[in-house]
Amino acid sequence: MSENISELTDLLRNLEAVNSDIQGSAIVSVQGLPICSALSRDVNDGIVSAMSAAILSVSERAVQELARGILQRILIEGIDGIIILSRAGENAILCTLAKPDASLGMVFIHITSVSKKIATLLD
Amino acid sequence: MSENISELTDLLRNLEAVNSDIQGSAIVSVQGLPICSALSRDVNDGIVSAMSAAILSVSERAVQELARGILQRILIEGIDGIIILSRAGENAILCTLAKPDASLGMVFIHITSVSKKIATLLD
Repeated sequence: MSENISELTDLLRNLEAVNSDIQGSAIVSVQGLPICSALSRDVNDGIVSAMSAAILSVSERAVQELARGILQRILIEGIDGIIILSRAGENAILCTLAKPDASLGMVFIHITSVSKKIATLLD
Repeated sequence: MSENISELTDLLRNLEAVNSDIQGSAIVSVQGLPICSALSRDVNDGIVSAMSAAILSVSERAVQELARGILQRILIEGIDGIIILSRAGENAILCTLAKPDASLGMVFIHITSVSKKIATLLD
């Protein structure tokens, strides 16, 4: 494991440690390939990465077409929890899992903070 | 215009009338084709419909892969506003535009209410 990947994995583990509403996270490339993951072992990282990049890409086009300004994040809300997709710099997407009743204000603050660190390592 | 389309258009116009945080809406088929729209005239309904269906379809797979339960809705947050995608019965998707600082609790209540009426007309 390269030093960068090890640092990125630490960032993801720390995200769960500082906010108990966060249940897992992964960094994927904007091309849809896995970079590193702190998701549960039964999750297929390849599928999650491809889906994250696809949703982000189409959403960036959608906010443009519908005059919503620059994309900040995407929330995919399921009954049992939320998937949050956001940019982490030019090259990466952060996919974060949160509890269904998560305090989203704090979750967004922690996501923004870690995204900046990811960007520093990958941009 | 068929009677159903006229009723659906009235539902969309009413959605904006009852909630000033809602700035427009459209009903699209799950296959990605436009059904009816109360979006501004400069929006390309065909592109919005195709993108809405694509995002919803991939998101339904994502909540399944990431054990988030049944998909409730997708929020695409831009700096100048929010796009909310949700099912309106078996055949349709409701795409709603809201202000960036919208009171989302009330917006969701109005979306749920109109989605049930859309489902009654289209299912």
